[in-house]
Amino acid sequence: MTVTGIVAEFNPFHNGHKYLLEQAQGIKVIAMSGNFMQRGEPAIVDKWTRSQMALENGADLVIELPFLVSVQSADYFASGAVSILARLGVDNLCFGTEEMLDYARIGDIYVNKKEEMEAFLKKQSDSLSYPQKMQAMWQEFAGITFSGQTPNHILGLAYTKAASQNGIRLNPIQRQGAGYHSSEKTEIFASATSLRKHQSDRFFVEKGMPNSDLFLNSPQVVWQDYFSLLKYQIMTHSDLTQIYQVNEEIANRIKSQIRYVETVDELVDKVATKRYTKARIRRLLTYILINAVESPIPNAIHVLGFTQKGQQHLKSVKKSVDIVTRIGSQTWDSLTQRADSVYQMGNANIAEQTWGRIPFYQPVSQSDL
Amino acid sequence: MTVTGIVAEFNPFHNGHKYLLEQAQGIKVIAMSGNFMQRGEPAIVDKWTRSQMALENGADLVIELPFLVSVQSADYFASGAVSILARLGVDNLCFGTEEMLDYARIGDIYVNKKEEMEAFLKKQSDSLSYPQKMQAMWQEFAGITFSGQTPNHILGLAYTKAASQNGIRLNPIQRQGAGYHSSEKTEIFASATSLRKHQSDRFFVEKGMPNSDLFLNSPQVVWQDYFSLLKYQIMTHSDLTQIYQVNEEIANRIKSQIRYVETVDELVDKVATKRYTKARIRRLLTYILINAVESPIPNAIHVLGFTQKGQQHLKSVKKSVDIVTRIGSQTWDSLTQRADSVYQMGNANIAEQTWGRIPFYQPVSQSDL
Repeated sequence: MTVTGIVAEFNPFHNGHKYLLEQAQGIKVIAMSGNFMQRGEPAIVDKWTRSQMALENGADLVIELPFLVSVQSADYFASGAVSILARLGVDNLCFGTEEMLDYARIGDIYVNKKEEMEAFLKKQSDSLSYPQKMQAMWQEFAGITFSGQTPNHILGLAYTKAASQNGIRLNPIQRQGAGYHSSEKTEIFASATSLRKHQSDRFFVEKGMPNSDLFLNSPQVVWQDYFSLLKYQIMTHSDLTQIYQVNEEIANRIKSQIRYVETVDELVDKVATKRYTKARIRRLLTYILINAVESPIPNAIHVLGFTQKGQQHLKSVKKSVDIVTRIGSQTWDSLTQRADSVYQMGNANIAEQTWGRIPFYQPVSQSDL
Repeated sequence: MTVTGIVAEFNPFHNGHKYLLEQAQGIKVIAMSGNFMQRGEPAIVDKWTRSQMALENGADLVIELPFLVSVQSADYFASGAVSILARLGVDNLCFGTEEMLDYARIGDIYVNKKEEMEAFLKKQSDSLSYPQKMQAMWQEFAGITFSGQTPNHILGLAYTKAASQNGIRLNPIQRQGAGYHSSEKTEIFASATSLRKHQSDRFFVEKGMPNSDLFLNSPQVVWQDYFSLLKYQIMTHSDLTQIYQVNEEIANRIKSQIRYVETVDELVDKVATKRYTKARIRRLLTYILINAVESPIPNAIHVLGFTQKGQQHLKSVKKSVDIVTRIGSQTWDSLTQRADSVYQMGNANIAEQTWGRIPFYQPVSQSDL
C-alpha cells in the first residue's frame, strides 16, 4: 500500500485540511509542528488536540516535529520534516497549493542544478530577505514568477526541493479557495488564519472546521499571552546573542525597544526591517521565549497519535527507526519539552503536554468508513 | 552637628520606625534597601514610596542600597550598608534592638579578636546554617546567649561588627514591643511583618503606620506575584549555577521541585534544609528571579530623597563621594536597575522605578517642626 506523507501545522485543523486528507492515498502519515509554529508563534490549541482533530478526519499517524524543525524558515522546515517522513517509509508527499505548477519538473531542475542554484542564492545581496533571494533563484532557474503574498507557494517549492532529494514523489493538491463551497452547504473553506482571527465566532468556526466542538472547548492562546514572559526574558537574560540565530544587531534592537512596547506585534514592527522579515523576527522572539540554543535534532520520532492502520505501519518501520510513545523514563528532545512547559504557561487550562501523555488512539481510520 | 546613620528596610514604614527616628540625633541619614529585601522577598511597596514615608517622618536623607548589598545575609548586608553610611560622614549608628546589650563592649571584643573569631566561624561544622555558626561565635567570645527567633538581635550584632570596623559609635534604641501603646491612644506599635500580613485591614494599618494613606493607595506586591516569572526563569535558564551563590546541589533541587509546586512558599519548603535556611533559599530565589551574577558594588551612591537639611549635608560630602540623583545619561548599578524592571512586573500599577525619577524633596525636616 502506498504511504503518503503530509507536512502540516493544523493551526487549527479545518475543512481544507480534511479535503487534503481525502485526496491523499493509502496510509496517511502526518509530520506536524508541535506547540510552536513555523512562522514563529504559539499554536492556537495544543499539539495533542490538533493531532486528535487530524486523526478524527482521515490521518493515520501523526508524529511531532521537534521544536528546531518546526520553528524554521520554509526551507529548513520542509527539509527537516520531509527527511523525518522519509525515515517513516513515506513514498509520496501530498501538499496543498494555490498554483498547480509542474512540481516534478521543478524537482528535477533542483536535483540537476543544486550546486549552481545554492551558489546563486549565496551571491544575492544581503539587503534582500531570504524569501526574496529564494524567489530570485526560482525565477532564474525555473522561470517561476511570484506575485504578492505567497507563503504556501514558497512552502510548495521548499517541499519540492526536500522531496526531490529524498526520492519522494510529489502529489500537489489544488487548494480550495476561501470562497469555494463544498457540496454540503453547511461547510465552508476558511483559512487557518481567518479561523484564528474569528476564533470566538461560533457560527463561523462551526462552518469552517470539522471538529469545532473540540476546538471551541480547548484552551486557546495567542502570542500576546506570552508577552510578559518574553519581556521578562529579554530584560533578565545575561546575553541574548547566546540564543539560537540571535545576532548582536537584533539583540540590541530588541533590548532597546522592549521598554517602549506593550505588545508582541508592536515589538515585531519596531524590530523588523526589509532584510529581517516579520516572520523571521517572530521566530527569533520564539527562540528567545524558549531560550533556545543550537542543539542536535533528536534521532527518535515522537508519536502523537494513530489509527489501527497507522499503528500497524509504525510497527513495520520500528526496526529501523527509534520511536518514542511516552516521554518519561524515555526522553525525547529537551528543547521541545522546554518549549512545551513554556507553552503551558500561556493559559492555566492547558493540559500537561509531556509527562504521562500517550498517543491518541483513533480505532477506525476515517478513510476506511 | 552629629550625623546619625540608620540601616533600614521600612517594609513598610511604621510607628516603631518613626519612634526610632525621633530618638536619633542630628542629621538622620538612612541607608535603605531598594525593591528587594534582606530576607529575599520583594518590598510590599516600592522604594520611592517607602523613602517618602521616612522623609515625612523624621529622616533627612535616604539613599538606596544596591541590590547585592540589600539581598544578603545579615553580615554582608550590615557591612555593606554601614560602609556606605561611613562614606556619607555618619559618626554614629542608631538601630532598634529587643535586648539592650553592651554593644560598645561587644564591638571592642570584635575589633580585638577579629581573626580568632572569624577562624572560629570557619571551623564550625558545615551542617550548621550560617546564623547558627554566628550564634556559636558570639556565645564563645562575648558570652551572648540566644533564644528562639532573633533576627533583629542577629542584625544588631552584625551592625556592631560593621560599625566597630568603621570607627562609628553605636546607638542602640530599645524597641517598643507590639503590645506597647504610645501616649496617643490612636497609635499602636505593630511589626512590619504583621502590617504586611494584615495589609488590607484599614483600621489596623491606620493605627500602626503614620502614612497609612500613602501605603494603602500604593500598588502592593508579594512574592507570589512573581511566581510565574520565577518558574519560567527556572524552566528556561540554560545553567542556574551561573547565578550568584547558586550551587549545583541547590540548582538541582530547585529544578526538580518546580514542576510540582504552585507557590513560592511551597518551593521554599521543598528546597530548604537545616543547613540552607528558608531566608537563604528566598535570597537564592530572588537572585534567580533577577538572574543576578556576581558583579561589583557600584561606587556611586543613589539618592532617593532628602529634606533641606539632608540636601545641605549631601553637598558637604559631594567632593569625596560620587552621588547619583537621576539615572539616565548617568548610570548607577545595572543589576539594581534590572531588579527594578522585574519588580515593576509584579503589579501593572507600579510606577516606573528608574528612568526620569528624581529624589523626593521634603522641604522641612520633621525634626525641625
